[in-house]
Order: sequence, then C-alpha cells, then structure tokens
Amino acid sequence: MDEIRIISKPLSDTTKTVLIGFPGSGLVGSIALQYMVDQLEFPQIGSVTSKYFPPLAMMTRGIINIPVRFYEKNNLAVVVGDIPIHPMICYEVASGLLDWFSQFKPKEVLTIAGIVTNEPEKRVFGVATNPEALQRIQDKTMILPIGSISGIAGSILTECKIRDIWGLGLLGETVNNPDPRSSAATIQVLNKMYDLKLDVGPLVEQAEEIEAAMQRIAEEVQTTEAGQKKEQLPMYG
Amino acid sequence: MDEIRIISKPLSDTTKTVLIGFPGSGLVGSIALQYMVDQLEFPQIGSVTSKYFPPLAMMTRGIINIPVRFYEKNNLAVVVGDIPIHPMICYEVASGLLDWFSQFKPKEVLTIAGIVTNEPEKRVFGVATNPEALQRIQDKTMILPIGSISGIAGSILTECKIRDIWGLGLLGETVNNPDPRSSAATIQVLNKMYDLKLDVGPLVEQAEEIEAAMQRIAEEVQTTEAGQKKEQLPMYG
Amino acid sequence: MDEIRIISKPLSDTTKTVLIGFPGSGLVGSIALQYMVDQLEFPQIGSVTSKYFPPLAMMTRGIINIPVRFYEKNNLAVVVGDIPIHPMICYEVASGLLDWFSQFKPKEVLTIAGIVTNEPEKRVFGVATNPEALQRIQDKTMILPIGSISGIAGSILTECKIRDIWGLGLLGETVNNPDPRSSAATIQVLNKMYDLKLDVGPLVEQAEEIEAAMQRIAEEVQTTEAGQKKEQLPMYG
Amino acid sequence: MDEIRIISKPLSDTTKTVLIGFPGSGLVGSIALQYMVDQLEFPQIGSVTSKYFPPLAMMTRGIINIPVRFYEKNNLAVVVGDIPIHPMICYEVASGLLDWFSQFKPKEVLTIAGIVTNEPEKRVFGVATNPEALQRIQDKTMILPIGSISGIAGSILTECKIRDIWGLGLLGETVNNPDPRSSAATIQVLNKMYDLKLDVGPLVEQAEEIEAAMQRIAEEVQTTEAGQKKEQLPMYG
Amino acid sequence: MDEIRIISKPLSDTTKTVLIGFPGSGLVGSIALQYMVDQLEFPQIGSVTSKYFPPLAMMTRGIINIPVRFYEKNNLAVVVGDIPIHPMICYEVASGLLDWFSQFKPKEVLTIAGIVTNEPEKRVFGVATNPEALQRIQDKTMILPIGSISGIAGSILTECKIRDIWGLGLLGETVNNPDPRSSAATIQVLNKMYDLKLDVGPLVEQAEEIEAAMQRIAEEVQTTEAGQKKEQLPMYG
Repeated sequence: MDEIRIISKPLSDTTKTVLIGFPGSGLVGSIALQYMVDQLEFPQIGSVTSKYFPPLAMMTRGIINIPVRFYEKNNLAVVVGDIPIHPMICYEVASGLLDWFSQFKPKEVLTIAGIVTNEPEKRVFGVATNPEALQRIQDKTMILPIGSISGIAGSILTECKIRDIWGLGLLGETVNNPDPRSSAATIQVLNKMYDLKLDVGPLVEQAEEIEAAMQRIAEEVQTTEAGQKKEQLPMYG
Repeated sequence: MDEIRIISKPLSDTTKTVLIGFPGSGLVGSIALQYMVDQLEFPQIGSVTSKYFPPLAMMTRGIINIPVRFYEKNNLAVVVGDIPIHPMICYEVASGLLDWFSQFKPKEVLTIAGIVTNEPEKRVFGVATNPEALQRIQDKTMILPIGSISGIAGSILTECKIRDIWGLGLLGETVNNPDPRSSAATIQVLNKMYDLKLDVGPLVEQAEEIEAAMQRIAEEVQTTEAGQKKEQLPMYG
Repeated sequence: MDEIRIISKPLSDTTKTVLIGFPGSGLVGSIALQYMVDQLEFPQIGSVTSKYFPPLAMMTRGIINIPVRFYEKNNLAVVVGDIPIHPMICYEVASGLLDWFSQFKPKEVLTIAGIVTNEPEKRVFGVATNPEALQRIQDKTMILPIGSISGIAGSILTECKIRDIWGLGLLGETVNNPDPRSSAATIQVLNKMYDLKLDVGPLVEQAEEIEAAMQRIAEEVQTTEAGQKKEQLPMYG
Repeated sequence: MDEIRIISKPLSDTTKTVLIGFPGSGLVGSIALQYMVDQLEFPQIGSVTSKYFPPLAMMTRGIINIPVRFYEKNNLAVVVGDIPIHPMICYEVASGLLDWFSQFKPKEVLTIAGIVTNEPEKRVFGVATNPEALQRIQDKTMILPIGSISGIAGSILTECKIRDIWGLGLLGETVNNPDPRSSAATIQVLNKMYDLKLDVGPLVEQAEEIEAAMQRIAEEVQTTEAGQKKEQLPMYG
Repeated sequence: MDEIRIISKPLSDTTKTVLIGFPGSGLVGSIALQYMVDQLEFPQIGSVTSKYFPPLAMMTRGIINIPVRFYEKNNLAVVVGDIPIHPMICYEVASGLLDWFSQFKPKEVLTIAGIVTNEPEKRVFGVATNPEALQRIQDKTMILPIGSISGIAGSILTECKIRDIWGLGLLGETVNNPDPRSSAATIQVLNKMYDLKLDVGPLVEQAEEIEAAMQRIAEEVQTTEAGQKKEQLPMYG
C-alpha cells in the first residue's frame, strides 16, 4: 500500500463482484464504467492516489474529481480510472488494488479494455483466468484461440490468477480514439451478465461530446508525463 | 516528511485558510502571492526544501531567500514558491504540504495557478473539491463545464479532496510568459474573498520589471534541471 | 524475494533437476520447454511475477496464463517464461529463482538458450559450471574453446556456480526469429540426457504457426517496454 | 551521512568560520581556496567521498589526492573540491556538509563561486543569508539588486539559512574557463575579512599553467560523467 | 555488501598484498593479472557478483567462469575482472572490495590500469596514496607531475587513501584496443616488486589471439549494457 494509496469505505458483505475500467485503447473501459456509474447512480465510496500517477485532477462543472475512484451499489463494486496506467506501474496498481479487494473475498473481478483491430465491427472478446470463469462469458463474447493482453488489464488478470480469484476480461474491438460505441458493446455484455438493463442509447448519442473531452485529457496526460510544467484547462466558456 | 523538509513555526490557532502559489503558466500564482505578502507585510514563518528541488537560491539586494516559503498574518497562511515543481514530485510536495497543514485543521486551502488560453482576456476560472466550497467563489469566478488541472495545483486539490479539506483553485487566464496582469486579476478575487483591500496598481506597473527578472530565473531553473553545472547571476549593477 | 514473487508448491523430494527456458535469440529455450511440458503433460505447480516484468498476460483459447511458470513431473522441474528478461533484471530473476530452488537441493540446473550464428546448421553447444557437469553433455553437444553467454542464461549459470550447484547450458544454434527447429535440436539432447522419448515431429510441423504467434508477442513486449499504453490482442477469429 | 561520507578530525573549539570552494564557472572557488591552503600551508584534516561523485582521483607528483578535502588552520576551516557537484546531488552534498559542520557551531560559512558575465572586469559580488551577515561584506563587494544563485553554492547558502548559520557568498565575475584572476579578486576580499595577507601575485603568474591542467581535469570529469569507461592521464613527461 | 556480493575463502594470515586488475583502456590490468594467475597457477579462492554487473558469463573450453574472481598464492591476493566497471558503480565496487580486504589488514593494494597516450612507447607510470608507498615504485616507473585517474582504478586508490591502506597504481601506456604488450610492461614492474620471475614472452606471442577474444567480449558487454536481449556466443568450431 506504499505504491498506491486507497482511501475508501469497506465493501458491503454482499458485494462479490468488482468491475474495473481504465483508459486504454479507445478508452473503452473507462467510458463504459463511468457511464454505468453515472446512469445507475452508483455512490462513490473511495479514491486511489499514487506518487506514480501523473499530477492531474479532473473537473466537471467546477468540481474536482480524483482520477481513480471506487463506486458501489447493488452488490457491484466499480473502479473507474481517468488516467492511463503507465506500463512501469501496472504491477503496483494491479497488485495494490487486488490486495485491497481481496480482504472482501470477491467471487469475480471483471476488467474492461479495448483491443485494436483494423475491422469496422464492434465485437467483444472474452478472456478468463480459468475454464469455469470462462463459461460465465463464453456465450456472450468471442473467444480467441491465442494472443496476449498487455497493460493494466493484463496485470489485473495476472494478479487474479495468482490469488485464485476468478478474473474475467471483456475486450471491446476498437480503434485508437475514444470509442463509446465499443464501450456500449461491452455494456451489452454486462447487461446480460448482471441484469443491469442499462440503456446504451444516450451513450451512443453522447459519443461525439465525450470523445472530444476525453481526447483532450489524454493529450494533456501525455504532455504531463513528458515532464512539462504547465497548468492548462480546456476552454468552453 | 522525507521527500520534503518543512522548517516552520506552527500556525496560530485562528489561521484556518492556506493560500498556495507556485510558478506555473504565466507564473500567475507565485507573482500574485509574493506581491500580496510583500504589500501586506506578512512575516515569513517557515521554509521548505527538498532533495528534489533544483539547487537554486533567490536573492534580493544581496539577501538570500529559500525558494519555497511560508508566511502568516491576519489568519491567513501563505505558501509562495520561486521554483516550478516538476511533475515527477508534485505528489510528494502536495502531500507533504497537506500533511503539515492538516495538523492545524485548516478550513480551506486555495491554490492559484495559470491557465493558458489563446484569448486576450484575463478572466479567472474557479474550481473546488465540493459544491459547498464552490459556492465560495461561484459568483466571483467563471465556472468551466469540464476540463482538467495538471501540475502541482492539480495535486494540491487532489490531496485536499482526499483529506476532506475544502480545496479551492483560482486559475488566471494567461500566456506562457510571466503575467502580473493575470496575477492582478486573481488578487481581485482574493480581495473579495478575504477583504484584503489590496491595491494591484503597483503590481501592474511593476509588470515589466518583474517579468524580466522572473523570466531569467525560469530560464536558469530550466538549465539547472538540464543538469548543467554553472553559477550565474543576472546583472543589474 | 522482494524483486520477484514466486507462488508455487514445493518440489517433490525426488526432483533434483531443474530445466529453465526463457525467450532469447530464436526463442529456443521457451519454445523447447513449453513444447516439452505440453507434450508430456507436466502439471503447472507455480507462477512467478515481478514488478520488473512487462505487464503482459498470455492467452490460449480464452484462458489467461502467467508469463513465467513452474511445472513438475517425473523428477523434473521446469521453468518456462513467455517474456524476455531485460538485462537490468537478469541478476534479480536468476538469484531469486536459484534462492527458491536451492531449498530443494537440486543436483543440476540446465538452462536452454539460443546462440546466433550465421550458419544454416542447428548444432547444440554445451557449457557447464565445472568439469564433472560438463561430462554430462560432452558427448551430446559441441564444446566451444572460448566465448561468453549474456542475458538470463548467463546469470543463471553464474548463480549456479556461486552456489556450487551443477549448472548446464544448452545453446541451440539459431537466427533472430522464433526457431522451433533449433528448439527441436535441444530437445534431442534432453531426450538423451533424461530419456524423455519426446517426439519432435509435431514441433517441427507446428513451427510456422508457433513462429507467427510468438513473433507477435515479442513485438508486443517490446512496444510495452517502450512505455506505450495500449491494450492489443492479435486477431485470429 | 549515507549520501556522502566524511572522514575527518573534529574542528578545534576556536574554529568558527568555514570557507567552501567547489569548481563552478571559472573554477573560481576551487582555485582560490586550493591556492590559499597551499600558500598558507593549511594541514589537511579530512576527506569526503560519495557514491554520487564521479570516479576520479587527482594526482600531483605521483601522489593521489581525494577530490573533496577538509583543511584547518588559524581558526579557519576550508573545504576544497576538485570535482564539480552535479545539480542532482547538490542538496545531499550541501546538507551533508552542513550537518557535519553544525556540530561545531560555526559562526559563518562562506562559499566562493563564479558568476559569468559578458564583461571584462573581475568584480566580486556579495550575498548573505541575513542583513547582519551582509554587513560583513557590504563594503568589500558589490551587492546585486536581484538575481539567483544555482548549483552547490546556492544549496550551501540555503542550508545555512535554514539552520540559522550566517551564510556568505563571494561571486567572482568570470568567464567559462579556469579563471585564477577572478580567484585572485575573491582572495583580496578574504584578505580584508580574515586578515590573511595572502599575496596573489604567484596565483596570477601561475594562471596559465593552472588553467591548462584544470581544464583537462574538467574535460575528463565530463567524459567520466558521460558514462564512458576509460583510464586516462594527461601527459607532461 | 548489498551492492556487491563476495563469496570467498578468507585470505591467509601472511597475505598482505592485493593486486587488482579490471578491463579499462587497452584491457591492460585484466590481461596482465589473468596472465599472471594462469602462468603461476594461482588457485581461485572466491567470486564477486553484483546486480549492477551486466549479465555475462565467460566461458573457456565449455567451463563457465564468474566475471570477477579472487585468486591467492605466495602471499599475494589477486582480483581479476572480465567486465569493465561502469562509472556509476565504481564507488560501490571499490568500497565493497576494500571493505572485504580490510578485515585482513593488507599492507598494500596495487591496481593496474591503462592510460591512453598518442605515443608508441609502452612506458609504465606510477602513482601512490602517500610518499612512502610511492618510494616502492619510484625507481621502477615514471612519475607524472600532475594529472588524474578516473574509473575503478581511481575509486580503488581513493578508498585506499581514506582507509590509510597503502595504495599503488601502475598505469600502462596503451591505445584503445586490447594491449597485451602494455600488460607485459606492467608485469615487468611486478617482477621487480614481487620477484615473480614471470616470463612475458608467451603473453606477447598470445597477443593476437587474446586481443581478438577480449575485443569480442568488450563489444558484447557494450551491447548487453545497451539493454539488448540476446544470447550470443563467438564461434570457433
């Protein structure tokens, strides 16, 4: 807990599922889960900071938000990140998160990420840490014969497997821009798995607006990581 | 307290507000608060050093000053920095400062920074860590619908939010040069918030002179960080 | 055990030989030992993770695998890695592995690697940490008059020599692409040493398919190490 | 004392002044104080090493010298460095030195450095950590209205100010080559302050010879820091 | 002993001299002492490893050797390195070695290095940590009026001086290629100092062969340090 700092309420006894989404390709995971917690009004229960995170605070209508947040409702815990996790710290972040969640004996941890293909479809590919877990999504996703998952999603699944926690991965087919349509596709899988009845219509409509904002953030994170010192705020006024 | 070293008198029991300004875009925050403590004759109560700071000592009329200083007067504590905080250490500096100030149970921490826009105006944008705090500045600043704050200001607001301390941010519209005019605009907001009655006229007049000196310092810090070994002193004699 | 994390069942009392293969030139060692454990149905007994490993999870038919794995059967322990070990951490990985295996008093540790020559042959060169050990392979491999071994194989042999554990190295002549044919040549040596009766026919047949997949993984690892943030999955569907 | 290693006899009870000179611009400080300890035959009382120093041993007539040395005589302690202190370690070196000297309750610490101007004169500029200290040199040096001091001299003055030890700085106007003439000018100030009656004639005469040698050393230090592995010795034989 | 790991038998009570040679310019030191221990059949008594060493194992006729080795015979202890010591770790290696040898109260430590000159001669230059030590070699070497020694030889001599152990340096005039002829010149000095009666004829004859192999190793170390992952073995078969 030295590498990352988790300040959160404990999970309720009945919460046995953790959903995790960080911004990767297409920002698929973070867009999907932020949309879910907003639409279903999940209350925020905690925050994560780290000396390894870029110095960045998100802001909406003047209110600051912490870049990595915990939410909980209806026996589902959700982790949403606004900042991409640098490969150098994926291990620390993944093991730090799993260390914290392990104390609540979760049954399954599901992470959402994007996979870049050069095809126009928005398929969702499924991976799991063991055959039983894979059955949970086998009929709802496409299974790949062979491949690899890099970044924070790969680290989370590795930490799940090491701890004998069921790890699931939903990988939305995407391109290298913010891609709410791919996020919507992954939400359709969540709807089937957790009976969320979440309407993705607004998400698709908001696509353009969200894309524009998230893109600016991604650019800013990069310049911040590049070690430049500037305070900058996108303008809408 | 390993990363940064704070040597200071404790705050008085009645001081519940901390103002923080470091040199970011336009040096808005550091110019504004240095001007304020000079004009209102705030006594210095402490200093901050860190192995992560560039080796640099400021000098005025032959007297050396420590690059990051604490001042206190009239129930206001002020932190002024002469050196930009590198993104790699924003977390350490922000959490170190908040750790120290937390012991005095501050009611609000306000940080001043600059935001670069390509518009000639000198508006001041307001952000806060919660709606109640935002109300403090809602009628005195412009509120942005969405965006992000990077650098030390972002880290300070994040640390405030995590600690449930009211965090406020004043972001002066600026360009990428020392910008006392933007600093003056943020002081006008401070005047309303804290009834300082601080005349910004001299600040605007001093603009040219201050700009020239601060610019040289900024350049020197950069060359120092670039790892060059030289002792250099701007000449006025 | 801080640098690398080993989660494994203990070795059986009768297991006195450890075979180690990581992806180096031609991926000779990892292809050979992965093929061996698959064909001879070695059960996996453990996993290795490290904050120094790139964030990467391998996947086969939707099931995630940990990049460095322990297997054991018939008095043979096997370590297979899917990820190249960066020179900066070879010492940590090699000493961490030997620290762990030393508790089971192994008689010999054999590592398989590739050596790039500009010759079409697929000879296998033998090295050992002492003359007695060398005799084990003298008649089954070619002995070089002088030279050096770099990378994880070099570190493993060094750690063996320091601990007075017999260290053996099989270096398959290879090129700079995945090279199952060279792996097959090293397996022929293992067949003689450990009476494995392992048919390399399928390996040679699978060559093309395996080459393609491993190559993609190697490329991905490199881009991951290059510090890029993307989630990507090769497509076969 | 982990960052730097000080091996020295304690200061005598009557020594309350410490003079410090490291090679900066013009090598002003190191040339001046090396000349002083040589001419006034100060015995060496200690040495400083650090894992952060470049691996370099100075040599005179076949005898090796440690790159950073302590001398003491007539109630004056002197620190002379042969190696420039990299900005990354100025904090460690300055705080390590002040930690050690603090135990002897010094009254004042004076550091000599060079300042690059584009003027032919050899003026000496004075800075101090407080007005009382400044009076010590006000009539013997030029006082600058505003500016900054970077590098080890800036760090030393910062550490003095934090510890409430009188810190003084003599900044000899110089160019970017070894500059014994500027060193001579700073010695003239020391003569007045400490009644040394030190003749700078020989220093000026030796200028050419010293310049040549120091220049070669500076070059070598740079190549060493550049991470090159070579053993090289300037030739005079 | 955290930085470097020494696994060795203790020195015999009568051994009061330590000879040290690492590969620097011309590989003068390592060639000279490896030749000496081979010709005089010094038994190896220990090994040194470090996480800071490049991952590399030397091999002769199929037998692996540890890159840094201790030998002892006839009251002489010898340290021979096959790998250049990077400037960043010279301090750790030198202080680690001296810490270990200090427990045996050595009378003198002699290090052999090369110095690059642009002259065809093969002179040997002598340096020492004090005048008494210098007398040991004054009539057998050339003494330089002024200069400096960088790299591991400089660090070793510095550590000797700090510990009040006699430190001696033999610097063989060389070029930037493996240079057994310069090594031979330094051995002639050792012959006089320690009455070794060591014939350097074979060394000169072997020059070409040794040069070729050492050169390949040096190149490989560099590529290894460059962070490339490859297993490569020079071919002679």
